[in-house]
Amino acid sequence: MTRSELFGQIQKKQSYLCVGLDTDISKIPSHLLKSDDPVFEFNRQIIDATKEFTVAYKPNLAFYESLGWKGLQSLAKTVDYIPKDIFTIADAKRGDIGNTASMYAKTFFELYGFDAVTVAPYMGSDSVKPFLEYKNKWTILLALTSNAGANDFQLLVHSPQTGVNRKLFEEVIIRSQPWGTTDNLMYVVGATQAEMLSDIRKMIPEHFLLVPGVGAQGGSLHDVSKYGMNKECGLLVNSSRQIIYASPGEDFAEKANAEAKRIQEEMSRYLSEFAK
Amino acid sequence: MTRSELFGQIQKKQSYLCVGLDTDISKIPSHLLKSDDPVFEFNRQIIDATKEFTVAYKPNLAFYESLGWKGLQSLAKTVDYIPKDIFTIADAKRGDIGNTASMYAKTFFELYGFDAVTVAPYMGSDSVKPFLEYKNKWTILLALTSNAGANDFQLLVHSPQTGVNRKLFEEVIIRSQPWGTTDNLMYVVGATQAEMLSDIRKMIPEHFLLVPGVGAQGGSLHDVSKYGMNKECGLLVNSSRQIIYASPGEDFAEKANAEAKRIQEEMSRYLSEFAK
Repeated sequence: MTRSELFGQIQKKQSYLCVGLDTDISKIPSHLLKSDDPVFEFNRQIIDATKEFTVAYKPNLAFYESLGWKGLQSLAKTVDYIPKDIFTIADAKRGDIGNTASMYAKTFFELYGFDAVTVAPYMGSDSVKPFLEYKNKWTILLALTSNAGANDFQLLVHSPQTGVNRKLFEEVIIRSQPWGTTDNLMYVVGATQAEMLSDIRKMIPEHFLLVPGVGAQGGSLHDVSKYGMNKECGLLVNSSRQIIYASPGEDFAEKANAEAKRIQEEMSRYLSEFAK
Repeated sequence: MTRSELFGQIQKKQSYLCVGLDTDISKIPSHLLKSDDPVFEFNRQIIDATKEFTVAYKPNLAFYESLGWKGLQSLAKTVDYIPKDIFTIADAKRGDIGNTASMYAKTFFELYGFDAVTVAPYMGSDSVKPFLEYKNKWTILLALTSNAGANDFQLLVHSPQTGVNRKLFEEVIIRSQPWGTTDNLMYVVGATQAEMLSDIRKMIPEHFLLVPGVGAQGGSLHDVSKYGMNKECGLLVNSSRQIIYASPGEDFAEKANAEAKRIQEEMSRYLSEFAK
């Protein structure tokens, strides 16, 4: 999917909501466990209930891999089921050397047909570039994450040769920019760090940011939108548990629909207020 | 597997060889493609041909995932086939927040039954600790890798509060030590950086190191052993392509056997010379 197609969806739906399909078989409503493929059946109903308000879906690979080969079948069926005008993100956080990175890129972009993959920066440029070689596919590089452990390394201060003190996540953003373009490279920036979004926007005014951590993890959608939005929105804000587990009962899809609608309406207001 | 069981294997076989099962369906001998599961059949013959000289096997997840759910079946069969006294490493380089990390740990340790998983440090302590909670299982944390991109971030110099200048990979080693023990935590240190092993051994004299990059990537087994070995060996040195693709023909297993034997004999000499 191209950047203009993605922005087109955002304008049309007045939404920058990404629904995280962190589908945990131990948490899905018990009446679904009778179906042949409970994980896919749950996802199918969540997609039907939320697609009107959603511009992206993000399956978290860990949840599918934990079910072995059957989980991967559920994943493939899920990606096929998502309407083609909605952006798909494999939340895989892969990071390995060149030939292995190429194989991961082939897996997510060609085998499953995802539009984007999340990638970890620790191993450097040759672990990221193989993903960037695909036309109209996206690499979403981890920069500043929303967990407590982000403090361990991402916020360490460097003294690069320029004499400017920079945090590691800033170094990741600055060094990785020439590897891609605003048309194939995004960054993960956690919502719990919303106050840092202004500074990040000074470094990368144009790039899309994928923002996890709103809702269950405590980040504020208002603050993320205020500090992170640019004139083409430039944000995909993820919500997982708050939507997909809005109800534990047979009305889970109905409640997911209501929750996605509520978030979309809030987003619509922020698009009018901050997208400039 | 416990540390003493692993060291017992090293002493018995006079080897610290880890064979990387980076099994690429486009590279395996064509006569195997007729079998029901060519990837497993290749691995089975490689394991039979090399197990006498090998203390660890390390399947690289990318190669199995690239074949979709069938690749995961080949992986499960491969891990089941490996003799139980040989150490198994899932080369997965996972790194994600707490609940997702727990799910990855469950997948590799419980579902597949691996002894160890490679883990990326970028997201910090809460992305690593869920792996360390498993008894007699191992976390192998990326520190200094063997690829060119290692220079991008791993070698950046920090100025921590102590006033001591440290490289990022040194910070990873120092900060992660209290998360685990020498009985459940190892580090990845690339063989192409052998000259740095002396300094790393000053920081972590006792920990096991997993060393990729010998052979095809240019690292020297002699130098790695000289600078990295401790009195309980403390090294697992990986070789992948050099062994598993020693011949492209029907004699691939025979040639893999000869290559593994050659490396084991070299290792036996280094154990006498440097393990003290």
